Amino acid sequence: MGDHPLLDRLSLNQITTEKWNLREAVEGCVRAEVPWISIWRHKIEEIGLAQSKKIIQDSGLKVSSLCRGGMFPAPTAKEREERLDDNRRAIEEAAELGTNTLVLVCGSAPDRDIDTARKWVVEGIEKLIPFAESHGVKLGIEPLHPMYAGDRSVVNTLGQANTMAEAVGKSQVGVVVDVFHVWWDPDLYKEIERANGNILGFHVSDWIVPVPDIFKGRGMMGDGLIEIRRIRNAVEKAGYHGPIEVEIINQAIWDRPGDDVLQEMKERYLEHV
Amino acid sequence: MGDHPLLDRLSLNQITTEKWNLREAVEGCVRAEVPWISIWRHKIEEIGLAQSKKIIQDSGLKVSSLCRGGMFPAPTAKEREERLDDNRRAIEEAAELGTNTLVLVCGSAPDRDIDTARKWVVEGIEKLIPFAESHGVKLGIEPLHPMYAGDRSVVNTLGQANTMAEAVGKSQVGVVVDVFHVWWDPDLYKEIERANGNILGFHVSDWIVPVPDIFKGRGMMGDGLIEIRRIRNAVEKAGYHGPIEVEIINQAIWDRPGDDVLQEMKERYLEHV
Repeated sequence: MGDHPLLDRLSLNQITTEKWNLREAVEGCVRAEVPWISIWRHKIEEIGLAQSKKIIQDSGLKVSSLCRGGMFPAPTAKEREERLDDNRRAIEEAAELGTNTLVLVCGSAPDRDIDTARKWVVEGIEKLIPFAESHGVKLGIEPLHPMYAGDRSVVNTLGQANTMAEAVGKSQVGVVVDVFHVWWDPDLYKEIERANGNILGFHVSDWIVPVPDIFKGRGMMGDGLIEIRRIRNAVEKAGYHGPIEVEIINQAIWDRPGDDVLQEMKERYLEHV
Repeated sequence: MGDHPLLDRLSLNQITTEKWNLREAVEGCVRAEVPWISIWRHKIEEIGLAQSKKIIQDSGLKVSSLCRGGMFPAPTAKEREERLDDNRRAIEEAAELGTNTLVLVCGSAPDRDIDTARKWVVEGIEKLIPFAESHGVKLGIEPLHPMYAGDRSVVNTLGQANTMAEAVGKSQVGVVVDVFHVWWDPDLYKEIERANGNILGFHVSDWIVPVPDIFKGRGMMGDGLIEIRRIRNAVEKAGYHGPIEVEIINQAIWDRPGDDVLQEMKERYLEHV
């Protein structure tokens, strides 16, 4: 399969093999000839940044993104400032690991006031820009499915993410398109077009019916309803030709041997993405 | 509590007390002095339309709506025609029960082609209009939360429902605003304004965190994050002053005695709606 050009863009988002630590995930990618990996911060924490960096560098893998910054809304100004500090650490980690993309999961409202939470998201991103710029890291606003509006992100459509990115200035801030979060949106293709030149990442998985779990319910590409290839074509037409991350949060997939998951992921990727 | 004018608009959507049959639900409303009820068709089927009508008429309750028509998309033209026949029966039932509102849960795509499914929804509604008109029944497009796009409805935002209602002509077709489905929407208040004069129903419940179940996960008003009163004010500003249905699909609430649920529902309604 190694001769298919699309495979040059395949990235394992590390959450897909949640049971693997960073070293295992890196070695798994090398065995499966997956050239990219997206790293989660809780996996870095287990062994430290220096060790993480060494493992990745020695492997020759490229890092497509760091997951994740964000979580801007908090009840007090002091807490919101602490969240920004944590984001600055994430930016440093991204730079250290050699990726120019920090994925932002923007956070939820600490109370019922979703409008204010959305303002805090924009404020938070604005405040990070100089630091991100000086580290050569771009901030990718990832709209999350509306079913996560209550606990993970108040940014729930690509249109909203585009508006935010435009509001803070396009050069350092873009959007991340994850098919699982946006596939249902009647404005999807219009908003992908609007994001032209400003897409920082593309994530794939599938929407299976019935959804087995609200958090750990994503499917392998091909097992669900999402028109993945159509969305990829739209994203490419909008200028994105970077790595494509397979990001599947699913207990049943986590419970399988990682090597099997990577093998299936490659096959499904070629068939459906 | 009977002296509060808002109580004149309170309606029990029958799914909130799913364990009760139609007679039990009607008697429960009478005991709790809830003046309106919304009827589900599977409850009518258990005892027949004539008997259902008699029970409701004898009780003096008013029927706020019939749940539900819709489910328009199907793989073949023949199946789609059968769905329309079923919708015509639903319109007849609504008229017979004395409500002028049939709530439409529009249905999902039979395959990956969500755009075509959305076209079939509009086509189906258009074809029903003359029949609905002759029976004095209006069709209320209820946008469902995007997490139901795969299995219940491809109409997932109020904006989309507004566009559909406008496309088929406003006189016989309107929208139904259910806070559970729309609360997260960054365009919510703009779209409520756009629906001015065309809102056929208003449903309340709450969004609890964590969501206990993707289908049976709605909360009692006040237990979650939704700015229910703010949405009610917006809906009223847009000209809707009809019944307010409490529609809670939640196993834990179903497992409680219906009379207790109705009592709590009244209290929470006055406090939070």
